[in-house]
Amino acid sequence: MNALPPSTLVLGGARSGKSAYAESLFGEAPALYLATGQALDGEMAERIDHHRRRRGAGWSTLEEPLDLADALDNVMRPDRPVLVDCLTMWLSNLMHAGRDIDRCLDRLCEVLSAPNGPVVLVSNEVGMGLVPETSLGRAFRDHQGRVNQRVAAQCRRVVFVAAGLPLILKDVS
Amino acid sequence: MNALPPSTLVLGGARSGKSAYAESLFGEAPALYLATGQALDGEMAERIDHHRRRRGAGWSTLEEPLDLADALDNVMRPDRPVLVDCLTMWLSNLMHAGRDIDRCLDRLCEVLSAPNGPVVLVSNEVGMGLVPETSLGRAFRDHQGRVNQRVAAQCRRVVFVAAGLPLILKDVS
Amino acid sequence: MNALPPSTLVLGGARSGKSAYAESLFGEAPALYLATGQALDGEMAERIDHHRRRRGAGWSTLEEPLDLADALDNVMRPDRPVLVDCLTMWLSNLMHAGRDIDRCLDRLCEVLSAPNGPVVLVSNEVGMGLVPETSLGRAFRDHQGRVNQRVAAQCRRVVFVAAGLPLILKDVS
Repeated sequence: MNALPPSTLVLGGARSGKSAYAESLFGEAPALYLATGQALDGEMAERIDHHRRRRGAGWSTLEEPLDLADALDNVMRPDRPVLVDCLTMWLSNLMHAGRDIDRCLDRLCEVLSAPNGPVVLVSNEVGMGLVPETSLGRAFRDHQGRVNQRVAAQCRRVVFVAAGLPLILKDVS
Repeated sequence: MNALPPSTLVLGGARSGKSAYAESLFGEAPALYLATGQALDGEMAERIDHHRRRRGAGWSTLEEPLDLADALDNVMRPDRPVLVDCLTMWLSNLMHAGRDIDRCLDRLCEVLSAPNGPVVLVSNEVGMGLVPETSLGRAFRDHQGRVNQRVAAQCRRVVFVAAGLPLILKDVS
Repeated sequence: MNALPPSTLVLGGARSGKSAYAESLFGEAPALYLATGQALDGEMAERIDHHRRRRGAGWSTLEEPLDLADALDNVMRPDRPVLVDCLTMWLSNLMHAGRDIDRCLDRLCEVLSAPNGPVVLVSNEVGMGLVPETSLGRAFRDHQGRVNQRVAAQCRRVVFVAAGLPLILKDVS
């Protein structure tokens, strides 16, 4: 059995090692990778492939760019932990698709408030640079900040990753 | 009475929950909100209004975009804590007004070195992205970094906030 | 003698006080400053000069913009600690010179895996803002993230600095 708490948020900057750290939380037992990213261009396809090779066998993969909360609700099981990678790509997809961010976030938090099995979610910290020049950039940053705050409030454990090293922000597991 | 230390700096990225965290440090007793932001456009007006509604009654508000140190010096009282939100907007105002940043910062540090009552200051971390493309952007980032370092050196407690969760950087209270 | 561990990485945002913190780790004994930056313009020259004045006497300086690993390997001695400032400038130099980043990083990690004397390395966190708009910006951020992760994995101690205040991310010294 897995020692993962019911819910964990792994937060970090770009190339902080947050995905590798999140994966390291999983043991050898079968796990599900719930991917929000889509290989729309070569740069992205390369990253997805790199992550897939690193995880290796034992993982099954499900792709869901938009309806993450429902997908997560459907796949959570006590005996198989889920890795959601990542909330930043999910948010980006929602914005491009014109979805109501607050409603989607409400639904995700609802699912996370009573998880049916262990789940680890990865998200980016994007608010520690200068104010973005475009209103779209500012909107994205604002939404991402709210996503991180609200998901962090639901999760039992929150870990900040920098240079591949974890810093525990919250642990009530 | 309030358990706040004489001086606290709350540092965090945009939409990190730093203002809400800072407000949570205050009890039910009357407090003063010393605002450096001005409602110059709709986006800003909305944010100010959102913050005001969250704080609720019991708070009085004073707006001072530029002469923060003197304003703070005037209003500090042992029985009424002050929340300064935020140093980033103050810095932005000073730069637009062509003020001498170092002198203004010296004066603020002087006031903070012997506070007449509890004060909590909120500031942004803005230096964890790529190098800004414009020299104005670089200058802002440099000034903000110096403001944060020097105010942190004066404060008894310094808290870093990410995803709404506090991380104590300094506590000599 | 110096209480420095064999290897320390000091990580922080721009103007976070990371260089000053790194310097504070050195005692009064002679030390070597291994500079990766070059005074190519006035802004940069001013910064280099500011850092030099702060360090004062007792420090010797060596400049090496590109072949950092070899330079470090040559100068490490048990009785004289080295400060490398900084890996971000080194990375920028390597990219401008068209060097093979991964190979240079492999070599640096090799040198750091068995240091002949205490070394402290300074590096920037650059991945906590929005996604850079240019592919060069994204490439830089990706490389910097990898540099930080791999050097952090080699170092005995890793310290994150914000507002001049240290947060220990790793300590196996």
